[in-house]
Amino acid sequence: MDENRRSYLKKDFVQGFPAFCGFEVEYVEFGRFGTRLNVREIHRQQDGFVHAGVTATMADHTAGYASFTTAPEDYRVLTIEFKINYLRPARGDILVCRSNVIKNGRKIKVVESDVFSIVEDEEIAVAKGLFTQTAVRLNNP
Amino acid sequence: MDENRRSYLKKDFVQGFPAFCGFEVEYVEFGRFGTRLNVREIHRQQDGFVHAGVTATMADHTAGYASFTTAPEDYRVLTIEFKINYLRPARGDILVCRSNVIKNGRKIKVVESDVFSIVEDEEIAVAKGLFTQTAVRLNNP
Amino acid sequence: MDENRRSYLKKDFVQGFPAFCGFEVEYVEFGRFGTRLNVREIHRQQDGFVHAGVTATMADHTAGYASFTTAPEDYRVLTIEFKINYLRPARGDILVCRSNVIKNGRKIKVVESDVFSIVEDEEIAVAKGLFTQTAVRLNNP
Amino acid sequence: MDENRRSYLKKDFVQGFPAFCGFEVEYVEFGRFGTRLNVREIHRQQDGFVHAGVTATMADHTAGYASFTTAPEDYRVLTIEFKINYLRPARGDILVCRSNVIKNGRKIKVVESDVFSIVEDEEIAVAKGLFTQTAVRLNNP
Repeated sequence: MDENRRSYLKKDFVQGFPAFCGFEVEYVEFGRFGTRLNVREIHRQQDGFVHAGVTATMADHTAGYASFTTAPEDYRVLTIEFKINYLRPARGDILVCRSNVIKNGRKIKVVESDVFSIVEDEEIAVAKGLFTQTAVRLNNP
Repeated sequence: MDENRRSYLKKDFVQGFPAFCGFEVEYVEFGRFGTRLNVREIHRQQDGFVHAGVTATMADHTAGYASFTTAPEDYRVLTIEFKINYLRPARGDILVCRSNVIKNGRKIKVVESDVFSIVEDEEIAVAKGLFTQTAVRLNNP
Repeated sequence: MDENRRSYLKKDFVQGFPAFCGFEVEYVEFGRFGTRLNVREIHRQQDGFVHAGVTATMADHTAGYASFTTAPEDYRVLTIEFKINYLRPARGDILVCRSNVIKNGRKIKVVESDVFSIVEDEEIAVAKGLFTQTAVRLNNP
Repeated sequence: MDENRRSYLKKDFVQGFPAFCGFEVEYVEFGRFGTRLNVREIHRQQDGFVHAGVTATMADHTAGYASFTTAPEDYRVLTIEFKINYLRPARGDILVCRSNVIKNGRKIKVVESDVFSIVEDEEIAVAKGLFTQTAVRLNNP
């Protein structure tokens, strides 16, 4: 993957709501994107676990950028829909997400995201999501 | 619905990540919950629309509290899984969410959430989600 | 809705696997499609209820034809993905399905299907599905 | 895995709607189940591909029996909900499905199913599903 494109996607990832949440990029490859979150109090829900919405946002945003790596430079990626299963409560202080494009259509992309909580150096699978996204050409000015 | 219970749920709703996001409660009835968000810059994504993760978090959290209204007082609600379809980009400055329990099982609750963007006093449907949740008894001390 | 188009869709609905299953059309309107199944032994699973696959097939096929009513005549409809929640076991001898297009995009259609089991003249909601479909132009010969 | 249990599950799999469809068991391991379908005309839809309902039924039923391998002998498995993405049209004459339990809870099971079409000895991924199921104790007589 082109190094300029990789740098662009790394920077582009961290803005707006994802920046507000504090997600960080770990790796960028063609069809693959990895991210990380240092969990703080603001990410938790009423019972002390990471909120389902944080996990869903991380899984969605990482999936979007996995799709992004496969799209031409003048395209953007929008989520059409997704489904996520919560496998275990996320108790640890670090969350990692790995997204892989499993169907790289020209218009329709299907992506899997796996989210893990790191507890005592072990990765615990906490959520799995399946995303349908579309790559759309940017409007010309 | 008991007024004390309603007040409790209204307060309980706004903590941790949902408080951080800025969701507010609009109404609480048995099996129904309504919420609102004043959209700010931090809620948007790279293209200026409300981030899919904000919408998903709002839809999930509101759905969770719709389930909550049907559960005994010593129970908590956890999301097992959900699916959400994005119908249109959310462009307006206000988002509202309405959640309704469509299957009120003792253990398993199924809830629908409809999210609308308010644009010039009109409600535009922006997302629809279907949630499976479980009501679990709090651990005794 | 044009009467010729309605007749065409009614006939087109009942072929291949859906004909094999025995689904029948009840109504056809723009963006809406209704179907019915007389449940036989072959539709059941190991515990005597209608098999989840029958319900899913009925919900999907009816949703597809609801989309179909909104597409130009030289287009076909394909399911991109769906999600279905089973609300109660289907015990009755008749199943009905009602599908409604909730987002009628030119390319992307989002459709809801509600499936009911008829027990002693009462409709029991047994499943709810949310479908993403695409309308594609037929290849010219 | 106990050989008697394996034989029991193999036989139990093929009854009612799945028998009507013609699914066959390929392998049975703890948390894993594999099946196969010789595609006939009755499995196809209006455009000549395998109907989405056949694929969904196969993915659901195989997932159910993957869960079944992890449940005590006096339990049955019911599908709470599932989501399935169609990746490519299924054109071949053989369909295979592989299901794996990814969260083996006592009550709640989460299972993945991958469906492949075999075309000229090559496996083409045609669908991926994510299933939430529950293991329930049989009623005593």
